[in-house]
Amino acid sequence: MKISNADRARILVHALPYIQQYNGKIVVVKYGGNAMINDDLKDSVMRDIVLMSLVGIKVVLVHGGGPEITNLLQKIGKKTEFVDGLRVTDEETAQVVQMILAGKINKNLVNLIQARGGKAIGLSGADGHMILAEKKDERLGYVGDITQVNTQIILDVLEKGYIPVISTVGCDKQGNVYNINADTASAKIAGELQAESLISMTDISGILKDKDDKDTLISSVNISEAKKLIEEGIVAGGMIPKVECCVNAINWGVKKVFIIDGTIPHAILMETLTDEGIGTMFTKGE
Amino acid sequence: MKISNADRARILVHALPYIQQYNGKIVVVKYGGNAMINDDLKDSVMRDIVLMSLVGIKVVLVHGGGPEITNLLQKIGKKTEFVDGLRVTDEETAQVVQMILAGKINKNLVNLIQARGGKAIGLSGADGHMILAEKKDERLGYVGDITQVNTQIILDVLEKGYIPVISTVGCDKQGNVYNINADTASAKIAGELQAESLISMTDISGILKDKDDKDTLISSVNISEAKKLIEEGIVAGGMIPKVECCVNAINWGVKKVFIIDGTIPHAILMETLTDEGIGTMFTKGE
Amino acid sequence: MKISNADRARILVHALPYIQQYNGKIVVVKYGGNAMINDDLKDSVMRDIVLMSLVGIKVVLVHGGGPEITNLLQKIGKKTEFVDGLRVTDEETAQVVQMILAGKINKNLVNLIQARGGKAIGLSGADGHMILAEKKDERLGYVGDITQVNTQIILDVLEKGYIPVISTVGCDKQGNVYNINADTASAKIAGELQAESLISMTDISGILKDKDDKDTLISSVNISEAKKLIEEGIVAGGMIPKVECCVNAINWGVKKVFIIDGTIPHAILMETLTDEGIGTMFTKGE
Amino acid sequence: MKISNADRARILVHALPYIQQYNGKIVVVKYGGNAMINDDLKDSVMRDIVLMSLVGIKVVLVHGGGPEITNLLQKIGKKTEFVDGLRVTDEETAQVVQMILAGKINKNLVNLIQARGGKAIGLSGADGHMILAEKKDERLGYVGDITQVNTQIILDVLEKGYIPVISTVGCDKQGNVYNINADTASAKIAGELQAESLISMTDISGILKDKDDKDTLISSVNISEAKKLIEEGIVAGGMIPKVECCVNAINWGVKKVFIIDGTIPHAILMETLTDEGIGTMFTKGE
Amino acid sequence: MKISNADRARILVHALPYIQQYNGKIVVVKYGGNAMINDDLKDSVMRDIVLMSLVGIKVVLVHGGGPEITNLLQKIGKKTEFVDGLRVTDEETAQVVQMILAGKINKNLVNLIQARGGKAIGLSGADGHMILAEKKDERLGYVGDITQVNTQIILDVLEKGYIPVISTVGCDKQGNVYNINADTASAKIAGELQAESLISMTDISGILKDKDDKDTLISSVNISEAKKLIEEGIVAGGMIPKVECCVNAINWGVKKVFIIDGTIPHAILMETLTDEGIGTMFTKGE
Amino acid sequence: MKISNADRARILVHALPYIQQYNGKIVVVKYGGNAMINDDLKDSVMRDIVLMSLVGIKVVLVHGGGPEITNLLQKIGKKTEFVDGLRVTDEETAQVVQMILAGKINKNLVNLIQARGGKAIGLSGADGHMILAEKKDERLGYVGDITQVNTQIILDVLEKGYIPVISTVGCDKQGNVYNINADTASAKIAGELQAESLISMTDISGILKDKDDKDTLISSVNISEAKKLIEEGIVAGGMIPKVECCVNAINWGVKKVFIIDGTIPHAILMETLTDEGIGTMFTKGE
Repeated sequence: MKISNADRARILVHALPYIQQYNGKIVVVKYGGNAMINDDLKDSVMRDIVLMSLVGIKVVLVHGGGPEITNLLQKIGKKTEFVDGLRVTDEETAQVVQMILAGKINKNLVNLIQARGGKAIGLSGADGHMILAEKKDERLGYVGDITQVNTQIILDVLEKGYIPVISTVGCDKQGNVYNINADTASAKIAGELQAESLISMTDISGILKDKDDKDTLISSVNISEAKKLIEEGIVAGGMIPKVECCVNAINWGVKKVFIIDGTIPHAILMETLTDEGIGTMFTKGE
Repeated sequence: MKISNADRARILVHALPYIQQYNGKIVVVKYGGNAMINDDLKDSVMRDIVLMSLVGIKVVLVHGGGPEITNLLQKIGKKTEFVDGLRVTDEETAQVVQMILAGKINKNLVNLIQARGGKAIGLSGADGHMILAEKKDERLGYVGDITQVNTQIILDVLEKGYIPVISTVGCDKQGNVYNINADTASAKIAGELQAESLISMTDISGILKDKDDKDTLISSVNISEAKKLIEEGIVAGGMIPKVECCVNAINWGVKKVFIIDGTIPHAILMETLTDEGIGTMFTKGE
Repeated sequence: MKISNADRARILVHALPYIQQYNGKIVVVKYGGNAMINDDLKDSVMRDIVLMSLVGIKVVLVHGGGPEITNLLQKIGKKTEFVDGLRVTDEETAQVVQMILAGKINKNLVNLIQARGGKAIGLSGADGHMILAEKKDERLGYVGDITQVNTQIILDVLEKGYIPVISTVGCDKQGNVYNINADTASAKIAGELQAESLISMTDISGILKDKDDKDTLISSVNISEAKKLIEEGIVAGGMIPKVECCVNAINWGVKKVFIIDGTIPHAILMETLTDEGIGTMFTKGE
Repeated sequence: MKISNADRARILVHALPYIQQYNGKIVVVKYGGNAMINDDLKDSVMRDIVLMSLVGIKVVLVHGGGPEITNLLQKIGKKTEFVDGLRVTDEETAQVVQMILAGKINKNLVNLIQARGGKAIGLSGADGHMILAEKKDERLGYVGDITQVNTQIILDVLEKGYIPVISTVGCDKQGNVYNINADTASAKIAGELQAESLISMTDISGILKDKDDKDTLISSVNISEAKKLIEEGIVAGGMIPKVECCVNAINWGVKKVFIIDGTIPHAILMETLTDEGIGTMFTKGE
Repeated sequence: MKISNADRARILVHALPYIQQYNGKIVVVKYGGNAMINDDLKDSVMRDIVLMSLVGIKVVLVHGGGPEITNLLQKIGKKTEFVDGLRVTDEETAQVVQMILAGKINKNLVNLIQARGGKAIGLSGADGHMILAEKKDERLGYVGDITQVNTQIILDVLEKGYIPVISTVGCDKQGNVYNINADTASAKIAGELQAESLISMTDISGILKDKDDKDTLISSVNISEAKKLIEEGIVAGGMIPKVECCVNAINWGVKKVFIIDGTIPHAILMETLTDEGIGTMFTKGE
Repeated sequence: MKISNADRARILVHALPYIQQYNGKIVVVKYGGNAMINDDLKDSVMRDIVLMSLVGIKVVLVHGGGPEITNLLQKIGKKTEFVDGLRVTDEETAQVVQMILAGKINKNLVNLIQARGGKAIGLSGADGHMILAEKKDERLGYVGDITQVNTQIILDVLEKGYIPVISTVGCDKQGNVYNINADTASAKIAGELQAESLISMTDISGILKDKDDKDTLISSVNISEAKKLIEEGIVAGGMIPKVECCVNAINWGVKKVFIIDGTIPHAILMETLTDEGIGTMFTKGE
């Protein structure tokens, strides 16, 4: 389809009320590893982020890891141990997680943003002691529970006009490194920042009434409905912790939380700057 | 044609480099009376202005008058006098010009911007003694030549986040009011502000090689070419002073000047935020 | 009487405590149409305003209209309609009111202030949507009740060092224009600004115990006394709404409200910067 | 003579252009010991200073000492020594000078300003090492030549809204204290500050053509004329160094320098805020 | 003992946690006259002050007088009068106190700080009307009780990067000068500033259980213990008012108060920047 | 050796002039991999950095890599290729370099600084496109020459009170990652920042006249002497590029450059805050 410049201009104007709604507000985007399926998509997501930043939205990008961690662990011949069926993160594994997240994926995303004309700084849990953690379970090694989120560094970086790009690696004052669940971390960060919204980009459409039928997408739930969907088993398996994070974020003060399919090009812009959402929106109210 | 949200999002992203180019820069928009052909169009232009402001462009809106001045003069039974074939602006006429421009059209445009979510302040030549003038020719009465443009008030208003909406009425320290040519005034203001661009919205497409054939639009000229087009008679009649104003603005330091057809919806956005211009662009260089 | 420079200097020094009392405070001056009796007086009032501004008082000038509105309505042959004995403001009339107030008187006062070395910006209800209004009574047309006063634009302009000169024309988001009672508007504005004082310049001396005897001026009342004066009929006729506005302003948070005779040269300076008031002062009282 | 409030208000307005001329400018006032003839006069001068400060003039008050130094030296039984007919300032004498100037007169003037509603800080040469000095002549002891004037502390204090009250005592990095000529010091300070004017308050009217006839006051001289007056002997005796200081101040960048009779009440206000000077004004030009 | 540079560096690093504890906090140092025993010691104390300022501590120096006041009174032949056995401060005596404190000792300390590379401003009670006072007892003359402490001037001076050096001379709005107890004044100032700590430098080690045995120093007391020590007579004589001042300062909001022996070189640094206190510390709590 | 608190305090005071010299200035510390010999040393260096930051020095920490890169390359079974005897950095190797530097060592140093009470942000070449690079030689792969250093991000981070910790990994706008020589990078960064000094911490004492005799350390050279030492062969082998970097840094505007032995505890403090240098200092002059 050929779209004329007149159409383009009209479409820009239609985005006006959506831009105004978010202008000057903080939006936390959780960009999960499973939504980083190829370089073109990553580039497209970063353009969306730059555009959002340019129209006055204070974007905070929290990213996950994807298969690269597993690849490197295999390459160095690391065997995963299990305790009572649970995967153990020993010190070397925690370091690999940090190297891939903070040393590779983070810097790659920062570079893409800069190359598209944005300004970005990559941050990890150690920077400004942003994410302090402790062991969740001694037997699991360096799997961390967040003990404190210091958002001052995020606010400082936003004030200077940068997009903070955050690897969710935790640390403690003894210099240990922790593997942190990125959904939990982004919900905590968004909550501490009292963000206008948290957008979780993953590879599913949102909550489906029938998980095999994309047409049964539930486009909006409040937190009590969300809890009921878990109880009723409509939300099940790996979706349960994701939905719980969304509910927590709302309880911690985020106004709106979205689960969207980040593998659709420009999903994030469609969700924020056009007239209908494409995933599931969580809100507090009745 | 139905445009999907995916298309909408893609189009927003395509605007990114154009937005980046103007971000933080001053763009003076001259909105001539002959481009104010109906309320819908005016509303559409003001939406464009609000969008430009929201994406970080410092828009300065200079407007003209249109037929409303003539209407009011007729209503009050004012006869226009002529001296040597030239129209005389006596004191009462000058007051009518000011009332229509600063008291009606200006406030109407300000209100439209505010109603679309923008922030605007209406200014006239007296405010901050922005436009000081003197009589061009004693016999013509209060037809003014600009003696001084004080842009401090424009910068103050921009710094506070408002879109200045300017009526080009001049004044002097004795309290007289002057009718000022709006093309000249906007060129001077843009020059003093060292604007990134001046966009003159009128009811013609730009410079045509053959004035009866819209397909002969010259999309770009430098100032020496522009002068030649006048000498050669390709630019003729009422277009001559308009083109001269464009050339002057470039000489006074404006980077790019455009003449566009403001009666086309979203003409200004198409010119600034899409990939091809729709009118004639004037630049300094070879 | 010849006044020596020594006397002049001594008088300046006597003004010191009065200046200190108002330094850095907001003073709203309502300059009614009936106090604009000639150009000399207007010029003299504007000099007073500039002086007050120069000695550190944050002056907000709210002006009324006077006979010029009626003149223009007559000139354009507008017949006033009445409904149940009340004057109707149709759309054309509302536009005339706005043109005269915001397009003529306002710019004239701004120019006078600038010509005396002050810095001024003229504002109307549309600017920054400062005065939002709705119809008071459908049958009366565009006679407006204020629904919202946005003082941010006034504070922004004061912060940049300008004297805001305000026409009390209201607007709504549909672009309609409303005739607003200037006494009510200035009381609301002063209240919202938590002004130190509101000075209402009119053509009467203040409240007289015997309305035919200027020597019976009541120089100070608190708001309960003022209400009693209305009940007792001492304040009657056109004075009733004026006095009610004064009482309202006090209730909305203004510290002191004055009614003074603005036709006396430098009345406003005498009231603020010398040792005795010349009109009636309203305070909160007991 | 009874002066009405109307007269008072008119006189305030007449001061307007004079206030505007000095608004935001630095005026250094040298208040010599011989103009401190009684407490009433001192109080009156301090009121003038507070008024000037309140109308936006950045006043810097440099004071001298008067007979109090001699009194204290006598009381402690200090004999003045002479070398080749010149008075010697030994260390104890220098300390007495500092105690009287910085510890008594300075604090007294600061207190008067504060009591009149002004804000003042007393400064001496040691504060911020404002006045660094060295011995003029080894035999004369601690009679100092200024080696450096650091005006940063004066600007810091002005920026915080205080009137700096300065004792012209010099110091060096070894902790010595120097007696400094106050006329020289105030000229240097005014020069370094690029002051708008320096007003030297003394007990003479200015330069007189015939020193015995007050009616022969020369109200204005440029610096070449001033030098000629010295050469011709019209300026003689103790007036020579005073006039040389005035000439130097002009050469160092002060716009206007005045010698006025500070024993006349409000002399300083008459000079700055009324229409005619009362002393002799020095300017650069022809 | 020869200390190597390696030791020096290690010692600097050991001070790190102590510096961090005080960084950005206000510390009031009371430097009593009896701790000013010679020039070397004074110089050494001023170096400590400059160092504290340089490592980010906001030092406020309050100084006393010492024997110089008595010396000058003797020199001018002033006889001290007594009323009911109490020393009377007549006007002349109060002036002598002010001259010595504000005009000699203060400026000397300021000069020492400046000479060591610090920035200092000397202040007395009159400056910014910092210390307002009234007569404690009519018969004692100008012995003052503090009625008001205005700390704005201290905060202004700190904000500009200066170390305020304060003479505790009081004043009133009539221009009188008062002799004020320096311990009381420094406690009040520290309390008003909500200082992190008040360090009182005197010539005793602190509170001794046995006043003749230095080894019985009590290194830490809370305020209820301190009161008990007075009741029990362990704190006796001249120590009682000193200890009461310490208790008051804690009650007024100072976190920690110290009495230290200021005649020991670098006592103040040892107390603040090393691992063990050298005097008695007062705290609030159990 | 037991050092008393009195000694400690005296040593702090001795550091005063050295602290003053660097206060508010930028000092770039290059912390090479070969000076990171154990965790205790690293911790000790970070304490020094925190102390320098606390006393007002704007420290910029540039770190190298050390043997960890080789370790990881071995673990993943990466074989190094050579072209004409030169080591090739293929894409995978470049990524490993970035992961170790930006993802491991950088975050470890940041964490240590934070754990010692400092504030730090880790930066790499991609952040704010701080280090843009291109291939030095096509055959060597991603070995980069710096094309641009953008120090704005460093200044932004310093202004917010953070210590920037920099990994010298370069990038380009296509998302490639480059191995950059850390000595060159730190010299360029220090030059662009117009740093007061650049301190290169390595594992040698400095320039030795006789490389086998530590007692022949040359403690100070100017840049022409340094060049001569290279010509004469006294500086040889791996020292040549290091010394050339020092010379370049001076030429680019750094005031003083030091090579010191970073394996000596607190070497950096001894160099900056005590009275004698421990390595070789480079200066511009004769």
